[in-house]
Amino acid sequence: MAETERWRELGQQLRVDSIRPSAIAGSGHPTSGMSAADLMAVLVDGHLRYDWANPSSPTNDRLVFSKGHASTLLYGIFRAAGVISEEDFDGYRTFGSQLEGHPTPVLPWVDVATGSLGQGLPIGVGMAIAGRHLDRLPYRVWVLCGDSELAEGSMWEAFEHAAHYALDNLTAVVDVNRLGQRGETMVGRDTGVLAERARAFGWHAIEIDGHDVEAIDKAYSDAAALTGRPTAVFASTLKGKGVAAVEDENGWHGKPLDDPEAGIAELGGIREIHVDVQGPAFDGKPHRFPTVELRLPVYEPGTKEATRKAFGDALVALGRARGEIVAIDGEVGNSTYTEEFSEALPERFFQAYIAEQQMVATAVGLQVRGWKPFAATFAAFLSRAYDFVRMGAVSRANIALVGSHAGVSIGEDGPSQMALEDIASIRAVHGSTVLYPSDANQTAALVPLMADREGIVYMRTTREKTAILYEPGEAFRIGGARVVRSSGEDAVTLIGAGITLHKSLKAADALAVDGISARVVDLYSVKPIDAETVLTAARETGAIVTVEDHWPEGGIGDAVLEVLAAEQPHPLVTKLAVSGMPTSGTPAELMAAAGIDASHIADAARALIARSGAQERNTTQVGGSRRE
Amino acid sequence: MAETERWRELGQQLRVDSIRPSAIAGSGHPTSGMSAADLMAVLVDGHLRYDWANPSSPTNDRLVFSKGHASTLLYGIFRAAGVISEEDFDGYRTFGSQLEGHPTPVLPWVDVATGSLGQGLPIGVGMAIAGRHLDRLPYRVWVLCGDSELAEGSMWEAFEHAAHYALDNLTAVVDVNRLGQRGETMVGRDTGVLAERARAFGWHAIEIDGHDVEAIDKAYSDAAALTGRPTAVFASTLKGKGVAAVEDENGWHGKPLDDPEAGIAELGGIREIHVDVQGPAFDGKPHRFPTVELRLPVYEPGTKEATRKAFGDALVALGRARGEIVAIDGEVGNSTYTEEFSEALPERFFQAYIAEQQMVATAVGLQVRGWKPFAATFAAFLSRAYDFVRMGAVSRANIALVGSHAGVSIGEDGPSQMALEDIASIRAVHGSTVLYPSDANQTAALVPLMADREGIVYMRTTREKTAILYEPGEAFRIGGARVVRSSGEDAVTLIGAGITLHKSLKAADALAVDGISARVVDLYSVKPIDAETVLTAARETGAIVTVEDHWPEGGIGDAVLEVLAAEQPHPLVTKLAVSGMPTSGTPAELMAAAGIDASHIADAARALIARSGAQERNTTQVGGSRRE
Repeated sequence: MAETERWRELGQQLRVDSIRPSAIAGSGHPTSGMSAADLMAVLVDGHLRYDWANPSSPTNDRLVFSKGHASTLLYGIFRAAGVISEEDFDGYRTFGSQLEGHPTPVLPWVDVATGSLGQGLPIGVGMAIAGRHLDRLPYRVWVLCGDSELAEGSMWEAFEHAAHYALDNLTAVVDVNRLGQRGETMVGRDTGVLAERARAFGWHAIEIDGHDVEAIDKAYSDAAALTGRPTAVFASTLKGKGVAAVEDENGWHGKPLDDPEAGIAELGGIREIHVDVQGPAFDGKPHRFPTVELRLPVYEPGTKEATRKAFGDALVALGRARGEIVAIDGEVGNSTYTEEFSEALPERFFQAYIAEQQMVATAVGLQVRGWKPFAATFAAFLSRAYDFVRMGAVSRANIALVGSHAGVSIGEDGPSQMALEDIASIRAVHGSTVLYPSDANQTAALVPLMADREGIVYMRTTREKTAILYEPGEAFRIGGARVVRSSGEDAVTLIGAGITLHKSLKAADALAVDGISARVVDLYSVKPIDAETVLTAARETGAIVTVEDHWPEGGIGDAVLEVLAAEQPHPLVTKLAVSGMPTSGTPAELMAAAGIDASHIADAARALIARSGAQERNTTQVGGSRRE
Repeated sequence: MAETERWRELGQQLRVDSIRPSAIAGSGHPTSGMSAADLMAVLVDGHLRYDWANPSSPTNDRLVFSKGHASTLLYGIFRAAGVISEEDFDGYRTFGSQLEGHPTPVLPWVDVATGSLGQGLPIGVGMAIAGRHLDRLPYRVWVLCGDSELAEGSMWEAFEHAAHYALDNLTAVVDVNRLGQRGETMVGRDTGVLAERARAFGWHAIEIDGHDVEAIDKAYSDAAALTGRPTAVFASTLKGKGVAAVEDENGWHGKPLDDPEAGIAELGGIREIHVDVQGPAFDGKPHRFPTVELRLPVYEPGTKEATRKAFGDALVALGRARGEIVAIDGEVGNSTYTEEFSEALPERFFQAYIAEQQMVATAVGLQVRGWKPFAATFAAFLSRAYDFVRMGAVSRANIALVGSHAGVSIGEDGPSQMALEDIASIRAVHGSTVLYPSDANQTAALVPLMADREGIVYMRTTREKTAILYEPGEAFRIGGARVVRSSGEDAVTLIGAGITLHKSLKAADALAVDGISARVVDLYSVKPIDAETVLTAARETGAIVTVEDHWPEGGIGDAVLEVLAAEQPHPLVTKLAVSGMPTSGTPAELMAAAGIDASHIADAARALIARSGAQERNTTQVGGSRRE
């Protein structure tokens, strides 16, 4: 069979296979696969270089379905390649099948989860940065995009970054089928305006008929040959192509065909074309950066340092010791202190500018290739990338996020710059880790552990310089906590982390003046939490004050309450958190106004102790029935 | 004084005043104001139409500082207009002053908080939509943008939407001073490439020297005269303009000048120019839409309906009854059911396409002008706009957000489409409300209450049809809960909301077979929570199972635990929540796998009751000391 005829036939097969699993499942997006079937047929049969037996090989091209809802098209490719079977189709979207409604990395040939639109291309940018600037291998990154998702600003962050980083190894294949979920896109089938936008963002743009296999082939060849710039192929297509009942018709998004059998017949029936995808085009090993022995920074007890600075120092040390460590920053490296990494190890630093979604996407893309990214910005602005963090967890991505300038304690800049929801939002990401170190030596000790931790690993750092509490070299573990003060006869436990640990220590000083011994716990690992230390404190002191520079919901206090949920008898607990919308002011003024300074902590402790005493007297009098 | 000379002098005054407050405060962004001073001088003295005595007048132009860090420039304008005094400058960034580090609406002339970059222009789009499509008044919206923030994808969402909605009443003034916080932007001072991008997105673009007052004046006149398209003025400027020590120099972002006195002298000293900003250019009242009496939809007990459908039905009813209600959707109106509103009341519906950040920004912009926006998409995709929601709270915005397709109970589409962190993340927004109705009649009753509630008001809706539990017309309040089953002698309380309330009822049926009476509480208002109903249940039953289709962190269970934090004796509590990464599958399979179906709830209740009985026996034996 001539090449072009084979592509056309393969396109038909992929269309048929876009229909079949969704017909079995009774749900899915067949028409979204049908529009892009020719685009993918030519890609996998003529341009993609991939060793199916070694999905993680550094010599493989990467293929990302940014339009993840076209999953049946992707699974059709996998069937054509022979890595899944006819029977696998039967399981599509059913419990226990790897063929989920939207692709996830439970399949070995899927690098990242997609399905939240506008994420695949930004992540592809990260992969292409890895190829060009880290691995230094000539693999290509191919991203199938929808036209609807070009409405997501994150796509334009990706366009700008790809051009800025000269990613000529990246090709975006945009399936311009005109129709979104509920109707036409803003530009319809005007590939001209899309191409103009891409060019304005520094890309080479090609407009083609997305069902003309020769034009597709030429576009991909041109893309591969071009140097210095990424290429976007804007392919005019018909949604539901080839089946008259649905072709180019609105109202067929996310629905199986009414009569799939007729549609399959109209497309010429089921085919059994095997695609012998070409193996990698080159041999080679990823570039490796030279390393030295790890020497973490040390801070002298009795002095002061900001944990954000310690993070920056430690990241440089870790980067020098481990060549896979890379850093990304949202244009605030002189605040987060990744600036130190960018100066010491510029080849492994990537500036994300003020594009937090792209920053996280780059991190996700880099970790696909085994790099260990640390991405940092003001903690408040990680909220900009929350959907990317959420999807990062679905992608089983291993990335470290670092947010500086947390809480009201940043002071004068005001609430727009204060992260007060970061602990809550990132705790509520599956498999995440949330660290909030209280001291510079502890920060330094935790940074290497972040690199080896799976999942989304978040560290919240503090703007202010705070006292050094721990000896250099002291070991800390993720999931631990530290009792930093205890007399053994403590009447109350104060639990804080970061800036509020220091306020708790000050409160303990004030309580000591009153003859009250307070245990102080450094809850530097908010998730996972050291349940044993919390429970022991609860049992031994019976009264707990938690204090956090964060909104009351979902932070340190709630993490502690969860540990105590099943505890009987239950300690008395008071949760202190930021109580009203902050303003500008000094850190001290704002912490006082928020009700989280030493004075408020000490008062809360005194009130609990008074209540505890009253309750013990009461308990002694009336006996212990739990339901009086 | 000739007009141009006055502008130049006013520009110098605004530069001086950009310096002065930050010099007093010892922090701030003087150089970011200095670059845009001429742009703002010509605007306020020649083009802006504003009645300072009536900031909320519908005949006023709106001015938004998207680059909110240039706050001293804005406050300098306020001083020139005579609405703040010399003494107010002394308070800049201090506790108790309205002159915060970044502008917030505590000042009556500030409509929305800025400072998280890339948000002012999207919100300006919302304001301009209000002007053109709702108020139908010819006020103009002027947005001062930074060049660094053009790296935020949200800006390009705004560009696309502004052109799509033909917002010729919107002008973006882009201060292209080349320098971000830590260095040069990706495009530097190349206004040509920025103009090309804006044109590709459908805007009229003008490039000027941003210190040439005549060119600025002409650009604004051209912008105001142009019909059918928004205009972007790309103004090449010098950061720190006029003070040689900092002019066009890197390293001066967010810092007061080293020698402010010398800088002020170099600029010709303090000036006392009063700007007599022109009043509104027209008389007129905002358009009002006709209304009818409110007739909420009704659903018959014994039937089934999805709460998402009830939301859509109720929104139409509310929209017909109240002309200020508007709806926006993220291109999934046939899933969220805002489609009904778009068909019934098309003049008040705005399609946000797949641009959730712009969707929320449009809502924030519309509410500035008194409209009551309901913005809806899949709950999972509200995470895309989390920073906009966060900032919406800082803006004191009153907006309703509705998220459909929450939780694993959506079934086959898989985890990318499942909101499992929405309750946690939106609870952790200051002043927010989180509703999760369990029944269609309840949903209908809550929708009107959302419109009158201040702050960020979120409703989570369920994809599945669920049983109608309540009578049509039954009253519900925000902050309430319902005991939907109780024998008066209940051994355990099951607390759920939305889909899990129905599973709880089923669990109660199973427990009844065992002779166990379970109270079932519908916690439809997760925030604020009905503490009394929870505490009463705790006291009367002593054992509580919470169950939610959400990650364990920050959701219904944590909201209940917070209510119980100080409760003594403390009930036994078991929290059920989604326990592992979901896949595709049927709703029933996925809820079982997540550990939140009726069977798991009943088992948890039985285990609690067994423990409770054992504990009571134990308590009877060893007495009631709280610290044995």
